[in-house]
Amino acid sequence: MPQRPSTEKNFRIVVEYDGTAYHGWQRQKQDPSIQGALEQALARMTGQRLTVNGSGRTDAGVHALGQVANFRCRTRLGPVELLKGLNSLLPADIAIRTCDSVPLDFHARFDARWKCYQYRVLNRPVRPALDRHRVWHIYRPLDLAAMRAALPHIIGTHDFRAFENTGSPRSTTVRTVRQADLRREGDGGLIFEVSANGFLKFMVRNLMGTLVAVGLGRLTSQEVEVIRQSGDRRRAGAAAPPEGLYLLHVTY
Amino acid sequence: MPQRPSTEKNFRIVVEYDGTAYHGWQRQKQDPSIQGALEQALARMTGQRLTVNGSGRTDAGVHALGQVANFRCRTRLGPVELLKGLNSLLPADIAIRTCDSVPLDFHARFDARWKCYQYRVLNRPVRPALDRHRVWHIYRPLDLAAMRAALPHIIGTHDFRAFENTGSPRSTTVRTVRQADLRREGDGGLIFEVSANGFLKFMVRNLMGTLVAVGLGRLTSQEVEVIRQSGDRRRAGAAAPPEGLYLLHVTY
Repeated sequence: MPQRPSTEKNFRIVVEYDGTAYHGWQRQKQDPSIQGALEQALARMTGQRLTVNGSGRTDAGVHALGQVANFRCRTRLGPVELLKGLNSLLPADIAIRTCDSVPLDFHARFDARWKCYQYRVLNRPVRPALDRHRVWHIYRPLDLAAMRAALPHIIGTHDFRAFENTGSPRSTTVRTVRQADLRREGDGGLIFEVSANGFLKFMVRNLMGTLVAVGLGRLTSQEVEVIRQSGDRRRAGAAAPPEGLYLLHVTY
Repeated sequence: MPQRPSTEKNFRIVVEYDGTAYHGWQRQKQDPSIQGALEQALARMTGQRLTVNGSGRTDAGVHALGQVANFRCRTRLGPVELLKGLNSLLPADIAIRTCDSVPLDFHARFDARWKCYQYRVLNRPVRPALDRHRVWHIYRPLDLAAMRAALPHIIGTHDFRAFENTGSPRSTTVRTVRQADLRREGDGGLIFEVSANGFLKFMVRNLMGTLVAVGLGRLTSQEVEVIRQSGDRRRAGAAAPPEGLYLLHVTY
């Protein structure tokens, strides 16, 4: 704990976590959260109650390889000491990948320009054992070509309210998706990657649920355009489960 | 439970498991094991106490994507019913990938011709959060070229006793390694894949530990040949931890 007063600093961290055991990013009164775990570790290191600002919330069970956050504090510690200290104090399912000094006005949420999410599906007859908390298992064969044909309908600047769950305050439901693709990987793996200037609540999971409905033949590719234009949440597919979702990286 | 007597059948299963929670493949008196879990599920399905023969034992914490086993039983159930029944009864960290009827004389251990293991290392400065039970984390940079230069010394038909831990009965310590390679994968991933007509106790983990010693500059590539020829276990690297090891497939 620093004994002499020190100037205020701002640090940016890139965080990896296994969301399985957490009630999401956001600090909770009782339940474990990623933000809460980070703030607790920082309190032990600095003796201060700090707020860690994430680039956005992730839901319960959702993972991250590159969540970004920042925190301001008065400390004589540098980024390397903070990185090592945090990684030794944090639980094993949360790790700090990088820590950097940033200008005092940097804010992980307000300054985020693009976010990229990955959604992993395992498409094979039998359930996974190793990846049971890491993928959405779909046992019926998915028509990848049909799913790919739906992608152009979710790229671009649109009102995405048909793919939003209610509950988060937002001034607009218009978002710009600049990239969305689907690829096979390994034995039955199917990876959806989507990049946008922001996501509405449950947007990636609702998009994935809708794409899977297309892959199963319940919707046509063209209907995804109709659903998006309708703005009607009830017409889109059910939300995909959280365990297949990963926040990959955030661009500033 | 079948009421009428039925002819004896033999089934071959391919099993995937997350070894984290198990004391290895082999049935134990108290501790959970993969073999024990399979035999318990089969006892519930068939009402019989059966023995499940694995292609070989895996150690505590070791995973499998394609362990092979067989069991003989008197049942009117077919392979599809067994597959579905087992997958509904087994814990979530064990899954049956395929189940087939095989001739009565098929034996998963005695008939195995080649086994292929994968060992996964994560080589980056900070510890993993998502893959903490799935890789060996090495934070110092590994010299992949030096490690690759050591591979020819472990390929071929040789006495591998320098890479064996004592404890398992075996008539010979000569094995034929027909393939061994190392590749980078993703962000810091390093994958060692090795295929042989059989492995001595801890052989893959001792080989990996030795290759990592080369990658860290503690041994030269050429010394791996000297160590193998010496037959002296104390000269090889320490065993790599179990959580990076995966039994990939077995060939008959």
